[in-house]
Amino acid sequence: MTAGAFIHPTAIVETESIGRDTRIWAFCHVLEGASIGQRCNIGDHCFVESGAVIGNDVTIKNGNSIWSGVSIEDGVFVAPGVVFTNDRHPRSPRLGAAAARYAGTDWLLPTRVGAGATLGAGSVILAGLTIGAYAFIGAGAIVTSDVPSFALALGNPARMKGFICRCGRQLELEGETAECAGCGLGFRRDGVTIAPVDASRRL
Amino acid sequence: MTAGAFIHPTAIVETESIGRDTRIWAFCHVLEGASIGQRCNIGDHCFVESGAVIGNDVTIKNGNSIWSGVSIEDGVFVAPGVVFTNDRHPRSPRLGAAAARYAGTDWLLPTRVGAGATLGAGSVILAGLTIGAYAFIGAGAIVTSDVPSFALALGNPARMKGFICRCGRQLELEGETAECAGCGLGFRRDGVTIAPVDASRRL
Amino acid sequence: MTAGAFIHPTAIVETESIGRDTRIWAFCHVLEGASIGQRCNIGDHCFVESGAVIGNDVTIKNGNSIWSGVSIEDGVFVAPGVVFTNDRHPRSPRLGAAAARYAGTDWLLPTRVGAGATLGAGSVILAGLTIGAYAFIGAGAIVTSDVPSFALALGNPARMKGFICRCGRQLELEGETAECAGCGLGFRRDGVTIAPVDASRRL
Repeated sequence: MTAGAFIHPTAIVETESIGRDTRIWAFCHVLEGASIGQRCNIGDHCFVESGAVIGNDVTIKNGNSIWSGVSIEDGVFVAPGVVFTNDRHPRSPRLGAAAARYAGTDWLLPTRVGAGATLGAGSVILAGLTIGAYAFIGAGAIVTSDVPSFALALGNPARMKGFICRCGRQLELEGETAECAGCGLGFRRDGVTIAPVDASRRL
Repeated sequence: MTAGAFIHPTAIVETESIGRDTRIWAFCHVLEGASIGQRCNIGDHCFVESGAVIGNDVTIKNGNSIWSGVSIEDGVFVAPGVVFTNDRHPRSPRLGAAAARYAGTDWLLPTRVGAGATLGAGSVILAGLTIGAYAFIGAGAIVTSDVPSFALALGNPARMKGFICRCGRQLELEGETAECAGCGLGFRRDGVTIAPVDASRRL
Repeated sequence: MTAGAFIHPTAIVETESIGRDTRIWAFCHVLEGASIGQRCNIGDHCFVESGAVIGNDVTIKNGNSIWSGVSIEDGVFVAPGVVFTNDRHPRSPRLGAAAARYAGTDWLLPTRVGAGATLGAGSVILAGLTIGAYAFIGAGAIVTSDVPSFALALGNPARMKGFICRCGRQLELEGETAECAGCGLGFRRDGVTIAPVDASRRL
């Protein structure tokens, strides 16, 4: 199933689930049981663990580790230096006081990154969260709670600071509506969330 | 002395001091003069420098560099994206204006991470500090001063925000005492520090 | 042109532009079209992209990626875990809604790091900025605007907190002047900037 994918000669790929036209660059390690879709670009020194699921058209910059429990939907951008996690209260599983907790898998919390989202450079995503579609996590943000679709989140801990279009441009609200100055897509706000007016164009 | 350890074929291990049942994963580089104890797990893309000392039962997630001067005691968890340092005012040693300082080793400040501690995802540990036993450094925390045993530290710069049990659960104080809701261990507070009531159970 | 440089056997170097006495360590990847000067030290697991320019006497610690558009002048120190970027509003270029933006190169913003500067551990440098000569970016700082020469910048977002000498020591101003307690260099402040009194000694 890795036919049609490019695997750099120094990369180690132990899964068959790599989609067509995906490129896996130098010194990457993709474990058995990981799944990566089509037309992705996985930069140097990345690690993808068993159970991680990466959709189509995803860009993952260098040096990122995608752990078991992390699902990345289509078209996501993972900047360099993003840190995923899958445990909210980690201890060394080899530590006597913590061994009971790691006998099972209840410690493992899933993370979902919605379609088209951006995780900015050096951001940290705590375990068990959902990042909405097309959300934009700013550089260095420490994300400790769910982020709605099309939301911009910044800071430590991350707070919502505005809305972002599908195309990556920040939206300027006029009352309850916004029209992207870049691509022209129209949005309507409903409380703390926002969505394209024409839902059929959402993806 | 690396008998009984697992070394991934792509890892480079130049020390003999790797304990039994320790695993060193892909693309790691452990220099001559580094020391790693028993039953440790060192994830992909890690680097351990000469003079670094790692105890037993330590878990180090992917991509971490453990520099000369860093000592990590038994049972510590080092999350992904943790950044250690060993110089408080670094300049390029090749820079003329800084060359005098790097002619000796006074610039090198030791860091000690106490037994059972957790260093959270993306945290940064400034040089010359001591992280107490079972302390818990939150994700993204920038640690600029010593952290007491069993303390929870969060933020940039990191501040103490509470206490954590050996097992990883946050403690709820009732007056000057606390009983862990997870493992039942009892604690007594003394000023800004806390310790198990039954010291013989501390480790 | 890589004659006189040391290239670790596991490093991949695809450019001819590596200066004499430069060392490139394990698992590094330097692309065709990248340029690195003399007497540099590039730690393990680094990546240098086509179009990145690195001067002489530069120290780059482990695991850093130097992207196209990033210029690093002579004598700079790049601590571990620094994150460079070259796009201010990234989306996956494979995402339909963002494809038009990535058809050209207008998205790529250059970053310049001035001679002798220090980028601290875990700092993030947004795209399109200039870090002045001998500036000192503190550990964990998220840099979102230009930083003047000799300035100390800390926090998320980074703010100016003082001045630093060429040698790395913080300056104590007396009125509008300062003399470094370490190396004796004299400075004069002019508004929010500072410069050596004897400009001929500046480098």
